[in-house]
Amino acid sequence: MTKYSKIFTFLLRLLALAGTVAAVVVMITSHDSAKVLNLTFTAKYSNTPAFKYFVIVEAIAGAYSLMTLFLSSKNLFRRLVIILDVVVTVLLSSCISAALAIADVGKKGNNHAGWLPVCGQVRKFCDHVTGSLAAGFVAAVLYFLLLLYSLYNVLDPLLL
Amino acid sequence: MTKYSKIFTFLLRLLALAGTVAAVVVMITSHDSAKVLNLTFTAKYSNTPAFKYFVIVEAIAGAYSLMTLFLSSKNLFRRLVIILDVVVTVLLSSCISAALAIADVGKKGNNHAGWLPVCGQVRKFCDHVTGSLAAGFVAAVLYFLLLLYSLYNVLDPLLL
Repeated sequence: MTKYSKIFTFLLRLLALAGTVAAVVVMITSHDSAKVLNLTFTAKYSNTPAFKYFVIVEAIAGAYSLMTLFLSSKNLFRRLVIILDVVVTVLLSSCISAALAIADVGKKGNNHAGWLPVCGQVRKFCDHVTGSLAAGFVAAVLYFLLLLYSLYNVLDPLLL
Repeated sequence: MTKYSKIFTFLLRLLALAGTVAAVVVMITSHDSAKVLNLTFTAKYSNTPAFKYFVIVEAIAGAYSLMTLFLSSKNLFRRLVIILDVVVTVLLSSCISAALAIADVGKKGNNHAGWLPVCGQVRKFCDHVTGSLAAGFVAAVLYFLLLLYSLYNVLDPLLL
């Protein structure tokens, strides 16, 4: 691994760490309440399983990113890290997709199933969720790039 | 690549192909209708963006699996295939998660958002979706195993 390549992957991991931390913080601080027909309803992330899954995975990915920032770049670690990068990338793509699917119903509703959009009532909550998903999406894309870059380095560069 | 290793990956790809084809067929043949308060409502996969995304990705993954079954095992191809395997695995994990998140709301609803479960009314539709998701999940797991196995072969086996 050249010096530049090390700096590049370090930066990608640092940005991914920032993305996951932002995603977790923005999501867990999201709450809002609305009064509809004299019933107060409170929106918070923990009411939706997909958002809880999102927070858990982003937290794991954040902790993993932090760990790998300070790992020695010995070959043994570097190769194990590629395998773990695959796992983290798959988990990130999974959690962002689940959360996005639910956020889409929250914003647009689904006529056919009779699910009404809720973002008109709890705008603050939806803004937080949107911000959190954006940060999580950036982290997922960074991990995907990191993985492709690692594979590109490990596999024969001439063939790619 | 040894003979056994070739047979093993061929079998994994064949099973993954079967899984994706089953997921697509079962999902697109799912429809049911119910009468609630004199209103007939029809459930089909194309009413839900997450299910449409699921069908598209499963179809792409199926086509890719079919192609790779008959690819020559020359090194150039083998290494490109690993990169594409990463992309397909990430896409599969993404589509299954999005579809699962919506299916979960369909089955259990979400009190807090006022979304009622619909599976009681359109049981046939929900059974199809469940079957399709199970097939898609199997395909995703097979691709994940295939990817880990390919990486295990390409990276130094002693280190894993």
